[in-house]
Amino acid sequence: MIIDCHGHYTTAPQALADWRKRQIDSLSNPALAPSPGELVISDDELRESVLNAQIRIQQERGTDVTIFSPRASFMAHHIGDANTSETWASICNTLIHRVTTLFPNNFIGACMLPQSPGVPPENCISELERCIEEYGFVGANLNPDPSGGSWKEPPLTDRWWYPLYEKLVELDVPAMVHVSTSCRSCFHTTGDHYLNADTTAFMQLLKGDLFKDFPTLKFIIPHGGGAAPYHWGRFRGMAQDMKLPKLEDKLLNNVFFDTCVYHQPGIDLLTRVIPVDNILFGSEMVGAVRGIDPETGHYFDDTRRYVDDVSGLTAEERQKIFEGNALRVYPRLAAALEKRA
Amino acid sequence: MIIDCHGHYTTAPQALADWRKRQIDSLSNPALAPSPGELVISDDELRESVLNAQIRIQQERGTDVTIFSPRASFMAHHIGDANTSETWASICNTLIHRVTTLFPNNFIGACMLPQSPGVPPENCISELERCIEEYGFVGANLNPDPSGGSWKEPPLTDRWWYPLYEKLVELDVPAMVHVSTSCRSCFHTTGDHYLNADTTAFMQLLKGDLFKDFPTLKFIIPHGGGAAPYHWGRFRGMAQDMKLPKLEDKLLNNVFFDTCVYHQPGIDLLTRVIPVDNILFGSEMVGAVRGIDPETGHYFDDTRRYVDDVSGLTAEERQKIFEGNALRVYPRLAAALEKRA
Repeated sequence: MIIDCHGHYTTAPQALADWRKRQIDSLSNPALAPSPGELVISDDELRESVLNAQIRIQQERGTDVTIFSPRASFMAHHIGDANTSETWASICNTLIHRVTTLFPNNFIGACMLPQSPGVPPENCISELERCIEEYGFVGANLNPDPSGGSWKEPPLTDRWWYPLYEKLVELDVPAMVHVSTSCRSCFHTTGDHYLNADTTAFMQLLKGDLFKDFPTLKFIIPHGGGAAPYHWGRFRGMAQDMKLPKLEDKLLNNVFFDTCVYHQPGIDLLTRVIPVDNILFGSEMVGAVRGIDPETGHYFDDTRRYVDDVSGLTAEERQKIFEGNALRVYPRLAAALEKRA
Repeated sequence: MIIDCHGHYTTAPQALADWRKRQIDSLSNPALAPSPGELVISDDELRESVLNAQIRIQQERGTDVTIFSPRASFMAHHIGDANTSETWASICNTLIHRVTTLFPNNFIGACMLPQSPGVPPENCISELERCIEEYGFVGANLNPDPSGGSWKEPPLTDRWWYPLYEKLVELDVPAMVHVSTSCRSCFHTTGDHYLNADTTAFMQLLKGDLFKDFPTLKFIIPHGGGAAPYHWGRFRGMAQDMKLPKLEDKLLNNVFFDTCVYHQPGIDLLTRVIPVDNILFGSEMVGAVRGIDPETGHYFDDTRRYVDDVSGLTAEERQKIFEGNALRVYPRLAAALEKRA
């Protein structure tokens, strides 16, 4: 089986964006705020939104199931306050639940959290519990920078985040560390902001001691780990200069990277540098790059091809990347897959 | 000849840091500010500061000359105001000039600029002119984020920067895009802040149209281009989705990457992905990583070994990386090298 650990609902019906626009427009006059019930999307509309997109692409590429979460750039935690985010997260997660119910063979849910700048992440716990326990989701997306590029929150290793980590550990679900839209003109959301956040998250974890306090907490750093694998020697050397344990010992029981790197040389480096046990197949389709690479004739984000074409990987290693590691990193995934059968 | 395009004076005598501390301590009471003349460092102290460091390492590694600039993390443009930066830049550049005069065979100068957050970069022009014309420097370090991690300046493609670019073009010197200390707890200066700035600079240039207005302006993006080469497929694909020209056509007449990537797989990727004409040898020694890699027995930042060990590079290609490209990207370098002989 090929499990894509990184897919967002980027193709949701227009009604969702329209509802969000009304919510944003009403921030200065809450009396005008739309109620969640005013968002009406039929099952047919949901089917249509994924059948000719994610599901068709899964079939074309021969992948089986996607861990599916709300559109990352639309999380936009910087908008409004905690109430704004709580309503919005609930709506988006419920849509994901409906899609996973309509297509249980294609999608397993992961949730967004109702983060809000400066708001302690305790406010995310009830939505997380709802999604894991009621909806059967298997993971959550954690935004290290809900301010949208201003980086106002404490580092991920700060105790500020601990109540949320306690709940993640209790529920036995990993978090994918994933920022949302940049509202800073200096950053491009899916160009540098996403990659920089990945690199910053990695460095925060390197410097801190989070996994001493949470030995079973697991993070997926998406987009191939940002710049971390390319600069693995730099980070190994910095850890050594700081008298820290080796990266393998300090981080790699808890930190994993996906394969959202959109060319063969990048995936070759990733699989050469990072132990195979720490790499999870992901494509982020339909996502940041939608075209066909004229150099290969295939979609840039058809990352299965790159993994298939890495020379020197054994069948067992490839199976770990495609399936085995995801089953280990998402402990609830096996049961979720069984339940749908 | 092997030209290292990326070296900072990280080993300056303690008196420099002491003077800077006095300058910073006096910010609230300018009457207490030290004068530049109060910084007294003898030629012998300068000699001692580099003989057993950069010069010994050059000899050990078989490199010849380093393009040498003030310590990047000490530029700290966020401190004080434009006057603070102007005095500090002048002092630091003058020290570089003295070192290059003492060791003309080992060092060619590049300057820091007296940037200050929110201050239009016109204030940098006279110091740039002084360093290029009086001191014979061949390049400048340009900080895209003088706020030290808050990213308050317009993108590098904004007209706000144009007066400085006009002077760079007029003087025929390239800029290395290099941030300084992060004063944000979320970022680590040499870990993620440097790499993120490289990636952000690259994405700003990709989105903008700077080189239409400045076809001869040249930027070196250090640290192997941050995350850009590892995610080259992502950036190629994004450019294509945005209906932009190919990266080669849009950027690679003007944008160059150094080899400050501290392991073989990283340099292998860099040389596989980026055209050889766009890669300049650099090590950043003595810099962010100072130890020996236990996996190789050699210094992490001994980047010459990695370039030597790339398989498939011809002698001519290696010569471009080590020497030819630097002579092209730094048009004043050839004359500077001749003059010392």
